[in-house]
Parts: sequence; structure tokens; C-alpha cells
Amino acid sequence: MKKDKICISNIINIGDEILSGHTVNTNSSYIASILYDIGIFTKRITAISDMKKDIIAQLDESMKNSDLIFITGGLGPTNDDLTKKVICAYFGFELKFREDIWKHILELFSKRGLIPDEINIEQALFPDSIIAVPIFNSVGTAPGIHIKFDDKHIFVMPGVPNEMKTMMSDYVTPFLKDNFSDILYYRDINTTDIPESSLYSILSNDPAFPFGCDIAFLPQGYGVTVRVKNFGEKDFRKNYVDKAVLTIESLIRNKIFAYDMKTPQEELVAVLKNLKLKISVAESCTGGLFMNNLTNVPGASGIFTEGFVTYSNDSKFNTLSVNSQTLCIDGAVSTVTVSEMLDGLLAVTKAGIVCAISGIAGPDGGSVYKPVGTVVLGFCLREKNKRFVNKFLFTGDRITIKEKASNKLMVEIIKYLKKDYN
Amino acid sequence: MKKDKICISNIINIGDEILSGHTVNTNSSYIASILYDIGIFTKRITAISDMKKDIIAQLDESMKNSDLIFITGGLGPTNDDLTKKVICAYFGFELKFREDIWKHILELFSKRGLIPDEINIEQALFPDSIIAVPIFNSVGTAPGIHIKFDDKHIFVMPGVPNEMKTMMSDYVTPFLKDNFSDILYYRDINTTDIPESSLYSILSNDPAFPFGCDIAFLPQGYGVTVRVKNFGEKDFRKNYVDKAVLTIESLIRNKIFAYDMKTPQEELVAVLKNLKLKISVAESCTGGLFMNNLTNVPGASGIFTEGFVTYSNDSKFNTLSVNSQTLCIDGAVSTVTVSEMLDGLLAVTKAGIVCAISGIAGPDGGSVYKPVGTVVLGFCLREKNKRFVNKFLFTGDRITIKEKASNKLMVEIIKYLKKDYN
Repeated sequence: MKKDKICISNIINIGDEILSGHTVNTNSSYIASILYDIGIFTKRITAISDMKKDIIAQLDESMKNSDLIFITGGLGPTNDDLTKKVICAYFGFELKFREDIWKHILELFSKRGLIPDEINIEQALFPDSIIAVPIFNSVGTAPGIHIKFDDKHIFVMPGVPNEMKTMMSDYVTPFLKDNFSDILYYRDINTTDIPESSLYSILSNDPAFPFGCDIAFLPQGYGVTVRVKNFGEKDFRKNYVDKAVLTIESLIRNKIFAYDMKTPQEELVAVLKNLKLKISVAESCTGGLFMNNLTNVPGASGIFTEGFVTYSNDSKFNTLSVNSQTLCIDGAVSTVTVSEMLDGLLAVTKAGIVCAISGIAGPDGGSVYKPVGTVVLGFCLREKNKRFVNKFLFTGDRITIKEKASNKLMVEIIKYLKKDYN
Repeated sequence: MKKDKICISNIINIGDEILSGHTVNTNSSYIASILYDIGIFTKRITAISDMKKDIIAQLDESMKNSDLIFITGGLGPTNDDLTKKVICAYFGFELKFREDIWKHILELFSKRGLIPDEINIEQALFPDSIIAVPIFNSVGTAPGIHIKFDDKHIFVMPGVPNEMKTMMSDYVTPFLKDNFSDILYYRDINTTDIPESSLYSILSNDPAFPFGCDIAFLPQGYGVTVRVKNFGEKDFRKNYVDKAVLTIESLIRNKIFAYDMKTPQEELVAVLKNLKLKISVAESCTGGLFMNNLTNVPGASGIFTEGFVTYSNDSKFNTLSVNSQTLCIDGAVSTVTVSEMLDGLLAVTKAGIVCAISGIAGPDGGSVYKPVGTVVLGFCLREKNKRFVNKFLFTGDRITIKEKASNKLMVEIIKYLKKDYN
């Protein structure tokens, strides 16, 4: 039976690596995004260190304010891994050696051609209680723990992203979907080229704002996403949201490039597949980021066959036949060079659409006329011989400039293809 | 005057985008890593939503348990941005229009060719108190706030990473360095190819363990980092740590690939620069990730001039002259193909070292003989005609497999070059 109420979750990440800043907390985003899609609210995400006092305090607070608690990290076998012990102390569990878990550990080590150490036995110790169930770890040694206490569920998982993700998809997500019904309906409208303030002004100036819904503005690397939510009666939610989306579309149509939190690369792959177009890429300052993002999308091989990172002038000349005079007079970061890179791609590949990026990502290499952040982006449709080549100035550090350039080019291609082919 | 005591910080991130899982909390890692390097401890990182009650509760708790509080997010001009108002309510500040901030907003909009909206005036309102100082925002409209209350410092910054980072480097970091002295000395030893449990066993079996230091094990994507910390008397700390590092080196020397949290790409760029070697790359399943990581390192152009993403069989044949029979009989994911990709790179480029990756990142494309995660990695030194080509099986989702493959190849090259040239 599904619960028909708003379900609140807390996520707790245990371990020094997040607090010292050397590991980005991707585990929490992963769990939170799954919960959000199911309709479970994450009220708080907290990273704390491996200290008994801190773990107990967080757990205790979360038991008071949430229905679901997700704990990751500190399940390893070494001396700084305290999570299991603290959980046992908190709930009054004893640890007991479990043959089935030990067997799995032995199998995993033998598969990897390794021999378990004495301290691995520690990982076969599990809370001896009927309210604590092991979560099978198909890709690692430490089992997870699912504790059912009163009406609450506590899921304890390893901090290694791969192991946590596998447990989520094998066990936790199906469990949540079976037990907690959705309580909201929402849609996301991804916009670009408009600041949050202008977006808000345009929408809020409409007398019907907020259109019977909750409207949130989420800044992303490539623009601002407008999230339209409704928590009303199940049968009416979708209706309200769909109507609000139609109104918002009529107000900012030319700023929309995608829906439902599709990343630029997901949207680009979808659009290209739909048009049966293959893309080829020549990257200079982005150094492979555009292609890396594109190939992060499953099925990218259907629309992408090859690309080039022409980082030096020589390689632009050798691989793409960019004129050496162009490189000398106009420079590598110029509309002429990027246009010639497109010509080179058209000649070298069979792609229906080609695109190119050249710029100065910094921190060095800038000048008065071409400061750091200057990037020229271009694309060309073979069939129509249509060409877009434009110069931009992006702010931020090296990695930010690379990201902005790659995203901007994707968004420009998407907008063009959607307009031109519709 | 610097404080000579352990200084505790709390980081609070405000906003729906982190809790809904759609934005990864990179802001916290950025701030925490800067604090760690200065020697300031982050006790807790918390992400909460834009709700007054939650913000007040977190702020209040942080005021009790920490010396420094870093708040990011919720400084935008729209209705869901509450941070400034809540801060004012908490400290009893009134908001006052500030001419200097408004002038900056106008300038920024005009530079971008945009006209400010009425709601941007909101951003020129600032707490009217001598304990609240604006933090200049050179890349955005919302100023930050530095509050000095008793002995505590609260830094309020925008959630847009670029704006937060600029404020950190322009104002906050220099302030912290001037006011808080370092209280620890530490070094990191990056290992690879050894599980955390074996690492712990080897080290802890030494009678001198933990070598007069605090030893922590931090799992990373490419291996486990051993962090050796000492909080003792300033004049002795470094001595203790250096001695411990020497001992640890003697125990696990062949598992170490770098020091001091250098990423594989940072270490690879440093090693190649040192040897005056240029690298060229051919990527199939990683789709540009290797080159993207490499070019994230400033100065990568000194060691990298060009590379190819040969995603399809055709492109492996056309660009790198991989034998079509090889592709047909052995398949694209084989040691023969990767070896021929290396030959192609040697022929097409002038690089002193070439490397290639071909594999199955999934989710589709696997078979019984070549399951998803099968990746062949190779590299070759032109001068010595030394060649390494090996098949690996990585677990995880598409992006994880790409990351593991790219990191593994980098680490293998680093280890080889360090051994071969020393």
C-alpha cells in the first residue's frame, strides 16, 4: 500500500573526503534526484566527519524530522570507518558474523585475483536484528543496511559511488517506488540567454502569475530552468501544470531550448537522432569536452562517428587544412579560422552537420584584443550550406570557460535545428 | 594577529537545486578544499531549502559550534531568494539602498547590453550595519556579505559557482590567510591498484603504525589516497609527517603514483613537461574524456597538440588506418585494434608518446565475451618503441566506465614514465 502524503528525506554523508573538499558530493545529488523523481522531498543533505558524536547527533535529528534517512560512507574495513558501529550503538544492535556475506566477500576477492585480509572479516559482521536487513552489494565487499524502525526507513550504503548506485538501482529505488506514491507533478522548462531577473520579471508581470502552480527558478550552467510544480489533488495536478507551461511558453518561447531538465547534450543527441543527422566536431580550447559530453549520452554512437581535438596551430593546418596565413594573420581564435575548421571537417568527414570551437580558456594566453574567455563557435549544415560563426566572451576560470563554450555551442545548434526544421 | 587554535567552519548551501539533485554541490567542495589547505576544519556541510525556518535553524546551530560560517545561494533577485532577508531578520539588520552597489549593477548590465529590471533594485539593498561589509562581485550583480559578529565571521555569497569563486579568491581567501594561522601539516600519498583494506593491513602491520601521525584513507576514483596529518607543535609537525611518509613509501612504493592530491591529469602533465614529451591520443569509448581531463590542466598545450575521437569503425580506418580486417575479425575492442590505433597515431602525429582507448562503455553493446566495461588501453613511446597494450574490465555505469578507463590509462603512463626514466 502506498502512502499518500508528502514524504521527507534526509541524506547524511559520512567521511573526511567530502569535508576536506577533495571529493565532490555526487552521491547526494544522485540519491536526491532519484527521490525527487519519485516525489520524495529531500529536506536536508549533510556531510559530517567520521566522529561518533557527530554521527549520532545527525541521525537523532534526522529521526525527528524525516521519514526516510539515507546514509553513505564509513562502511569500509579500516579504523576510520565507524558508521556500522555507531548505527549499532544508536539502535542497540549487536554485530554477528554472517556466513552468506563472508561467502560473497571471498567470491569477489577471488574474481579479482586478490586474497582477503583479516580485517575484511569485519565486513561480514552484520547487525543481529529482525529490523535490519542486508542490502546486497554486487560490486563491492561491504553490504548495505536497511533498517525499518517504526514508520521510518534508514538505508545505509557505502560511500564508493559505484557501490552506492548499484544498491540504489538494485534494491532501494524499487523499494521506494513500491512503497511511496508520487505526491506532486512538475515540469521543467530549460531556458537560455536570459538572466534570472528578466525571466522573473516577464513571468511575474503576467496577471495570472504563478498560474496556479509553484514556480521555481534554477540556475544551470547553460541558463535558467523554470520548474513548474503542483501539489494539488492527483487528478488535477497535471492539468494545472500543463496549462501553466503553455502560458509560460507563450511568454518566453524564443528563450526555451529544452524541457524536463534535459542537458544540452541529451537534447542535442535527441534532436540529431530525430533528424537523422550525424555530427562531427573540431575542438581547440575545449580540448574534447564537447565530444565527451556528447558521448556521455547513451546511444551517442548513432549520431556521432568522429571528431578532432586540434589543439595546436599545426594540427589545425595538418588535420583540417586551415590556411597557415589565416592562422598567422587572423589568429587561431578568429571567425575566419573557425570557418576554415568547418570547411576542413566538411572535407574530411561525411557528417551532415559539423561544428568547431576555438578560444582562450586561460589562465594565460589572453591579450587586450582577445582577453581570456574569448571563444569563437561555429557550425555548418552540409546540405543547406547554412553557416553560423560567432565570437563570444565568457567569464570564469579555465574549466568554467570550457563548459560555457561547449554548452553554448550545443544550445545554439539545438535552437537552430529546431527552428529550421520545424 | 593570527589565531593559533583549531578553527572550525560550517558551510551552508541554500536552494532547491541541490536538494532536488539536479545540481551537484561543487561550491562546498571548492570552499572546503581552500579551508583545508589553510588549515581550517570544516565540521559540517549542509544543504537546505529556501525556507526561513530551516535557514534560521542552521544558522543558529552553526553560530554555536563554529568560528566561521560560509553561506552560498539565495541571493538572486527572485521571490524564492530569501537569504539576505533571513540574515537581516536573524541579526536584526535593516536593509538600505546603496548607491555604489546600484552603480555596479547598472555598469554590469550595460556591459552585457542588457537593461536592468525593476527587481534588480532589490539587489542594491544592503544591511545597514557597521558589522556587515559588502563583498564586491566583479562578475555578477549580487554583492556578498561579510558579517563580523563577536569573534565569528559569516560570509554570505551567491550560489552561482563563478561568482562565489571570484569572491573567494578576491576577498575571502586573502582575509582568511591573513587572520587564521595554519594548525596542521599534512601530506597525501596517492596510491592505485590496491584496495583500502590491503593498504590498511600493510600499514597497520608495521609496529610503528601510525608513525606518530593521524592516518586517513580517502577513496578516489583512481585509487586510495593515504593522508598523513600532524597537529603537534608547529616546529615538529613537518618532521613527523615527512618521516611517516618515508616509512609508508618503503612499505608500498610500487603502488604510489603521485603525491599531494594531484589528479592523474595534473601528474601526467607535470611528468610529460619534465621529460619534454608530447602526447597524442586516440579515443573511442571514452569519447574525448581523456583529452578533456588533460586540457583541464593549465599549460596542457605545452605537452598536447592534437588528438582524435575515432568513435566508429570507419573513422578508425580512415583517420588511423586501422586494418579493416582487424576491425572485422578481432573487433574494435581488441588489443590488435588498439595496437594499430597506436601505429596510426605514430604515423599521423609527431608526438613522442601516443595512447589509445577502445572499449564498451554501455549500457548496450556488450556480449558474453566482451561484456560492458571491457576496455583495451594502450600507449607507446616512439623513441624506445616500447609498447603497453592491455585489456581491463571496469564496473559501473557508462560515465563511471569512461572515467575509470581514462584514469587507469593516465596512471599506467605515469607509473611507466616515472620508472623508465628515473
